Amino acid sequence: MSRAGLTRMTKIEVVVTGAEGAAVRDLIQAVGATGYTNLSGVSGLGHHGQHQGRLLFNQQATLELIITVVSDDKADDLIAGLRPLLSASSGVMFVTDTYVSRPDYFT
Amino acid sequence: MSRAGLTRMTKIEVVVTGAEGAAVRDLIQAVGATGYTNLSGVSGLGHHGQHQGRLLFNQQATLELIITVVSDDKADDLIAGLRPLLSASSGVMFVTDTYVSRPDYFT
Amino acid sequence: MSRAGLTRMTKIEVVVTGAEGAAVRDLIQAVGATGYTNLSGVSGLGHHGQHQGRLLFNQQATLELIITVVSDDKADDLIAGLRPLLSASSGVMFVTDTYVSRPDYFT
Repeated sequence: MSRAGLTRMTKIEVVVTGAEGAAVRDLIQAVGATGYTNLSGVSGLGHHGQHQGRLLFNQQATLELIITVVSDDKADDLIAGLRPLLSASSGVMFVTDTYVSRPDYFT
Repeated sequence: MSRAGLTRMTKIEVVVTGAEGAAVRDLIQAVGATGYTNLSGVSGLGHHGQHQGRLLFNQQATLELIITVVSDDKADDLIAGLRPLLSASSGVMFVTDTYVSRPDYFT
Repeated sequence: MSRAGLTRMTKIEVVVTGAEGAAVRDLIQAVGATGYTNLSGVSGLGHHGQHQGRLLFNQQATLELIITVVSDDKADDLIAGLRPLLSASSGVMFVTDTYVSRPDYFT
Protein backbone atom coordinates (compact mmCIF):
# COMPACT_ATOMS: atom_id res chain seq x y z
CA MET A 1 0.00 0.00 0.00
CA SER A 2 1.18 3.50 -0.71
CA ARG A 3 2.22 5.04 2.60
CA ALA A 4 4.28 7.90 1.16
CA GLY A 5 4.49 10.76 3.61
CA LEU A 6 3.08 8.70 6.45
CA THR A 7 4.87 7.39 9.53
CA ARG A 8 4.13 4.11 11.25
CA MET A 9 3.03 4.41 14.87
CA THR A 10 1.30 2.15 17.39
CA LYS A 11 -2.39 2.52 18.15
CA ILE A 12 -3.42 1.23 21.56
CA GLU A 13 -7.11 0.77 22.26
CA VAL A 14 -8.19 0.02 25.81
CA VAL A 15 -11.68 -1.09 26.84
CA VAL A 16 -12.32 -0.68 30.57
CA THR A 17 -15.17 0.11 32.93
CA GLY A 18 -15.87 3.78 33.54
CA ALA A 19 -14.31 3.48 37.00
CA GLU A 20 -10.97 2.53 35.47
CA GLY A 21 -10.88 5.11 32.69
CA ALA A 22 -9.13 7.79 34.73
CA ALA A 23 -6.31 5.41 35.66
CA VAL A 24 -5.80 4.55 31.99
CA ARG A 25 -5.70 8.23 30.99
CA ASP A 26 -3.24 8.96 33.81
CA LEU A 27 -1.00 6.18 32.54
CA ILE A 28 -1.22 7.48 28.96
CA GLN A 29 -0.11 10.86 30.23
CA ALA A 30 2.63 9.36 32.39
CA VAL A 31 4.36 7.69 29.44
CA GLY A 32 4.39 11.00 27.57
CA ALA A 33 1.65 10.45 25.02
CA THR A 34 0.46 13.75 23.63
CA GLY A 35 -3.24 12.92 23.65
CA TYR A 36 -5.99 10.38 23.55
CA THR A 37 -9.50 9.88 22.22
CA ASN A 38 -12.23 8.71 24.56
CA LEU A 39 -15.46 7.03 23.41
CA SER A 40 -18.51 6.82 25.60
CA GLY A 41 -21.70 4.96 24.71
CA VAL A 42 -19.67 1.78 24.92
CA SER A 43 -21.05 -1.42 26.34
CA GLY A 44 -19.99 -4.97 25.99
CA LEU A 45 -19.46 -8.33 27.42
CA GLY A 46 -15.93 -8.84 28.65
CA HIS A 47 -13.53 -11.21 27.04
CA HIS A 48 -12.85 -12.64 30.48
CA GLY A 49 -15.71 -14.81 31.68
CA GLN A 50 -14.49 -14.92 35.24
CA HIS A 51 -14.93 -11.24 35.97
CA GLN A 52 -18.32 -10.91 34.36
CA GLY A 53 -19.59 -14.40 35.02
CA ARG A 54 -22.91 -13.15 36.32
CA LEU A 55 -23.80 -11.52 33.03
CA LEU A 56 -25.62 -13.41 30.33
CA PHE A 57 -24.17 -13.00 26.86
CA ASN A 58 -26.58 -10.25 25.88
CA GLN A 59 -26.25 -8.32 29.12
CA GLN A 60 -23.70 -5.60 28.76
CA ALA A 61 -21.46 -3.69 31.12
CA THR A 62 -20.94 0.06 30.74
CA LEU A 63 -17.48 0.62 29.38
CA GLU A 64 -15.15 3.20 27.89
CA LEU A 65 -12.98 2.85 24.81
CA ILE A 66 -9.81 4.89 25.08
CA ILE A 67 -7.57 5.24 22.02
CA THR A 68 -4.07 6.64 21.88
CA VAL A 69 -1.37 6.62 19.21
CA VAL A 70 2.27 6.63 20.29
CA SER A 71 5.76 5.92 19.03
CA ASP A 72 7.16 2.43 19.54
CA ASP A 73 9.21 3.23 22.63
CA LYS A 74 6.28 4.87 24.38
CA ALA A 75 4.11 1.95 23.28
CA ASP A 76 6.37 -0.45 25.14
CA ASP A 77 6.14 1.67 28.29
CA LEU A 78 2.39 2.03 28.00
CA ILE A 79 1.79 -1.67 27.39
CA ALA A 80 4.00 -2.52 30.38
CA GLY A 81 2.02 -0.12 32.54
CA LEU A 82 -1.36 -1.31 31.32
CA ARG A 83 -0.64 -5.00 32.00
CA PRO A 84 -1.00 -4.88 35.81
CA LEU A 85 -3.89 -2.41 35.59
CA LEU A 86 -5.82 -4.68 33.21
CA SER A 87 -4.87 -7.83 35.11
CA ALA A 88 -6.65 -6.42 38.15
CA SER A 89 -9.77 -5.69 36.11
CA SER A 90 -11.72 -7.15 33.24
CA GLY A 91 -10.28 -4.64 30.77
CA VAL A 92 -8.59 -5.51 27.52
CA MET A 93 -6.21 -3.76 25.15
CA PHE A 94 -5.71 -4.07 21.40
CA VAL A 95 -2.38 -3.03 19.86
CA THR A 96 -2.42 -2.22 16.13
CA ASP A 97 -0.02 -0.79 13.55
CA THR A 98 -1.27 2.48 12.17
CA TYR A 99 0.13 5.32 10.07
CA VAL A 100 -0.11 9.04 10.73
CA SER A 101 0.61 12.12 8.65
CA ARG A 102 2.15 14.23 11.38
CA PRO A 103 4.39 12.09 13.59
CA ASP A 104 5.48 15.16 15.56
CA TYR A 105 1.94 15.31 16.98
CA PHE A 106 2.45 11.95 18.64
CA THR A 107 5.98 12.07 19.99
CA MET B 1 7.64 -2.97 15.83
CA SER B 2 8.34 -4.49 19.19
CA ARG B 3 5.57 -6.94 19.92
CA ALA B 4 7.29 -8.87 22.69
CA GLY B 5 4.80 -10.53 24.97
CA LEU B 6 1.90 -9.85 22.63
CA THR B 7 -0.05 -12.33 20.52
CA ARG B 8 -1.51 -11.61 17.11
CA MET B 9 -5.28 -11.99 16.87
CA THR B 10 -7.98 -10.89 14.43
CA LYS B 11 -10.17 -7.88 15.16
CA ILE B 12 -13.52 -7.93 13.41
CA GLU B 13 -15.55 -4.75 13.36
CA VAL B 14 -19.13 -4.89 12.11
CA VAL B 15 -21.29 -1.87 11.32
CA VAL B 16 -24.99 -2.73 11.10
CA THR B 17 -28.35 -1.15 11.82
CA GLY B 18 -29.63 -1.49 15.37
CA ALA B 19 -32.14 -4.10 14.21
CA GLU B 20 -29.32 -6.39 13.10
CA GLY B 21 -27.06 -5.98 16.14
CA ALA B 22 -28.57 -8.86 18.10
CA ALA B 23 -28.02 -11.27 15.22
CA VAL B 24 -24.37 -10.23 15.00
CA ARG B 25 -23.86 -10.72 18.74
CA ASP B 26 -25.58 -14.12 18.58
CA LEU B 27 -23.20 -15.12 15.81
CA ILE B 28 -20.18 -13.89 17.77
CA GLN B 29 -21.31 -16.06 20.67
CA ALA B 30 -22.02 -19.02 18.39
CA VAL B 31 -18.44 -19.17 17.10
CA GLY B 32 -17.14 -19.21 20.66
CA ALA B 33 -15.83 -15.67 21.00
CA THR B 34 -15.42 -14.74 24.64
CA GLY B 35 -16.77 -11.23 24.34
CA TYR B 36 -17.45 -8.16 22.29
CA THR B 37 -17.56 -4.38 22.55
CA ASN B 38 -20.62 -2.50 21.35
CA LEU B 39 -20.63 1.18 20.40
CA SER B 40 -23.79 3.21 20.20
CA GLY B 41 -23.98 6.80 19.01
CA VAL B 42 -23.00 5.51 15.60
CA SER B 43 -24.45 6.90 12.41
CA GLY B 44 -23.30 6.76 8.86
CA LEU B 45 -24.00 6.48 5.25
CA GLY B 46 -23.73 2.92 4.04
CA HIS B 47 -21.05 1.74 1.71
CA HIS B 48 -23.80 0.16 -0.36
CA GLY B 49 -25.75 2.76 -2.28
CA GLN B 50 -28.59 0.42 -3.16
CA HIS B 51 -29.84 -0.12 0.37
CA GLN B 52 -29.66 3.50 1.40
CA GLY B 53 -30.34 5.09 -1.92
CA ARG B 54 -32.96 7.39 -0.47
CA LEU B 55 -30.44 9.07 1.80
CA LEU B 56 -28.46 12.06 0.68
CA PHE B 57 -24.75 11.89 1.52
CA ASN B 58 -25.13 13.93 4.70
CA GLN B 59 -28.18 12.04 5.95
CA GLN B 60 -27.18 9.31 8.26
CA ALA B 61 -28.69 6.02 9.35
CA THR B 62 -28.60 4.93 13.00
CA LEU B 63 -26.08 2.14 13.33
CA GLU B 64 -24.13 0.04 15.77
CA LEU B 65 -20.42 -0.74 15.70
CA ILE B 66 -19.68 -4.13 17.20
CA ILE B 67 -16.05 -5.13 17.81
CA THR B 68 -14.73 -8.54 18.70
CA VAL B 69 -11.25 -10.03 18.82
CA VAL B 70 -10.80 -13.72 18.11
CA SER B 71 -8.20 -16.31 17.17
CA ASP B 72 -7.69 -17.06 13.49
CA ASP B 73 -9.80 -20.23 13.39
CA LYS B 74 -12.73 -18.51 15.05
CA ALA B 75 -12.23 -15.54 12.74
CA ASP B 76 -12.76 -17.79 9.72
CA ASP B 77 -15.97 -19.15 11.22
CA LEU B 78 -17.23 -15.72 12.16
CA ILE B 79 -16.44 -14.21 8.76
CA ALA B 80 -18.21 -17.11 7.06
CA GLY B 81 -21.24 -16.59 9.26
CA LEU B 82 -21.31 -12.83 8.81
CA ARG B 83 -21.20 -12.99 5.01
CA PRO B 84 -24.83 -14.07 4.46
CA LEU B 85 -26.06 -11.86 7.29
CA LEU B 86 -24.38 -8.79 5.81
CA SER B 87 -25.35 -9.71 2.27
CA ALA B 88 -28.99 -9.48 3.31
CA SER B 89 -28.46 -6.05 4.84
CA SER B 90 -26.41 -2.93 4.24
CA GLY B 91 -23.90 -3.85 6.92
CA VAL B 92 -20.16 -4.03 6.46
CA MET B 93 -17.28 -5.69 8.27
CA PHE B 94 -13.63 -4.73 8.61
CA VAL B 95 -11.04 -7.40 9.44
CA THR B 96 -7.76 -6.17 10.94
CA ASP B 97 -4.64 -7.70 12.49
CA THR B 98 -4.26 -6.73 16.12
CA TYR B 99 -2.15 -7.80 19.08
CA VAL B 100 -3.30 -8.57 22.60
CA SER B 101 -1.48 -9.11 25.86
CA ARG B 102 -3.62 -11.93 27.19
CA PRO B 103 -4.51 -14.33 24.39
CA ASP B 104 -6.25 -16.66 26.84
CA TYR B 105 -8.95 -13.99 27.21
CA PHE B 106 -9.86 -14.38 23.56
CA THR B 107 -9.68 -18.12 22.93
CA MET C 1 -3.46 -15.05 8.84
CA SER C 2 -6.05 -16.61 6.64
CA ARG C 3 -7.54 -13.85 4.53
CA ALA C 4 -9.15 -16.05 1.90
CA GLY C 5 -12.00 -14.27 0.21
CA LEU C 6 -11.08 -10.92 1.70
CA THR C 7 -9.62 -7.89 -0.04
CA ARG C 8 -7.17 -5.44 1.51
CA MET C 9 -8.37 -1.86 1.70
CA THR C 10 -7.34 1.24 3.62
CA LYS C 11 -9.22 2.36 6.71
CA ILE C 12 -8.93 6.05 7.47
CA GLU C 13 -10.06 7.29 10.86
CA VAL C 14 -10.31 11.02 11.46
CA VAL C 15 -10.80 12.68 14.85
CA VAL C 16 -11.95 16.29 14.57
CA THR C 17 -14.11 18.75 16.43
CA GLY C 18 -17.81 18.71 15.61
CA ALA C 19 -17.41 21.92 13.66
CA GLU C 20 -15.02 20.22 11.23
CA GLY C 21 -16.95 16.98 10.75
CA ALA C 22 -18.98 18.23 7.80
CA ALA C 23 -15.84 19.27 5.92
CA VAL C 24 -14.35 15.81 6.45
CA ARG C 25 -17.50 14.10 5.21
CA ASP C 26 -17.61 16.39 2.18
CA LEU C 27 -14.03 15.44 1.39
CA ILE C 28 -14.80 11.73 1.79
CA GLN C 29 -17.61 12.15 -0.70
CA ALA C 30 -15.46 14.22 -3.06
CA VAL C 31 -12.86 11.46 -3.46
CA GLY C 32 -15.59 8.98 -4.36
CA ALA C 33 -15.81 6.96 -1.16
CA THR C 34 -19.09 5.07 -1.02
CA GLY C 35 -19.79 5.71 2.65
CA TYR C 36 -18.54 6.46 6.12
CA THR C 37 -19.28 5.70 9.75
CA ASN C 38 -19.61 8.53 12.24
CA LEU C 39 -19.19 8.14 16.00
CA SER C 40 -20.48 10.69 18.45
CA GLY C 41 -19.91 10.59 22.19
CA VAL C 42 -16.26 11.18 21.45
CA SER C 43 -14.09 13.38 23.60
CA GLY C 44 -10.38 13.65 23.99
CA LEU C 45 -7.32 15.66 24.49
CA GLY C 46 -5.69 16.54 21.20
CA HIS C 47 -2.38 15.21 20.14
CA HIS C 48 -1.37 18.78 19.34
CA GLY C 49 -0.66 20.75 22.49
CA GLN C 50 -0.66 24.09 20.73
CA HIS C 51 -4.31 24.07 19.72
CA GLN C 52 -5.63 22.80 23.01
CA GLY C 53 -3.05 24.32 25.32
CA ARG C 54 -5.69 25.69 27.63
CA LEU C 55 -7.00 22.24 28.47
CA LEU C 56 -5.56 20.26 31.33
CA PHE C 57 -4.87 16.62 30.53
CA ASN C 58 -8.16 15.41 31.96
CA GLN C 59 -10.26 18.12 30.32
CA GLN C 60 -11.68 16.90 27.09
CA ALA C 61 -12.86 18.53 23.91
CA THR C 62 -16.02 17.34 22.14
CA LEU C 63 -14.99 15.50 19.03
CA GLU C 64 -16.21 13.24 16.25
CA LEU C 65 -14.60 10.06 15.00
CA ILE C 66 -15.25 9.52 11.30
CA ILE C 67 -14.27 6.19 9.72
CA THR C 68 -14.15 5.36 6.04
CA VAL C 69 -12.71 2.44 4.09
CA VAL C 70 -11.44 3.04 0.57
CA SER C 71 -9.25 1.54 -2.12
CA ASP C 72 -5.60 2.57 -2.25
CA ASP C 73 -5.96 5.16 -5.00
CA LYS C 74 -8.83 6.88 -3.23
CA ALA C 75 -6.89 6.67 0.02
CA ASP C 76 -4.07 8.69 -1.52
CA ASP C 77 -6.53 11.35 -2.68
CA LEU C 78 -8.29 11.46 0.66
CA ILE C 79 -5.08 11.68 2.66
CA ALA C 80 -3.85 14.49 0.40
CA GLY C 81 -7.11 16.35 0.91
CA LEU C 82 -7.19 15.81 4.66
CA ARG C 83 -3.66 17.13 5.23
CA PRO C 84 -4.44 20.85 4.79
CA LEU C 85 -7.77 20.49 6.57
CA LEU C 86 -6.14 18.88 9.60
CA SER C 87 -3.18 21.25 9.52
CA ALA C 88 -5.59 24.12 10.05
CA SER C 89 -7.19 22.38 13.02
CA SER C 90 -6.21 20.11 15.87
CA GLY C 91 -7.57 17.05 14.11
CA VAL C 92 -5.66 13.84 13.51
CA MET C 93 -5.99 10.91 11.16
CA PHE C 94 -4.98 7.27 11.52
CA VAL C 95 -4.41 5.15 8.40
CA THR C 96 -4.63 1.36 8.85
CA ASP C 97 -4.65 -1.72 6.62
CA THR C 98 -7.92 -3.59 6.83
CA TYR C 99 -9.67 -6.36 4.93
CA VAL C 100 -13.24 -6.44 3.68
CA SER C 101 -15.47 -9.16 2.30
CA ARG C 102 -17.16 -7.12 -0.38
CA PRO C 103 -14.65 -4.82 -2.07
CA ASP C 104 -17.28 -3.66 -4.56
CA TYR C 105 -18.99 -1.87 -1.66
CA PHE C 106 -15.99 0.36 -1.22
CA THR C 107 -14.91 1.21 -4.75
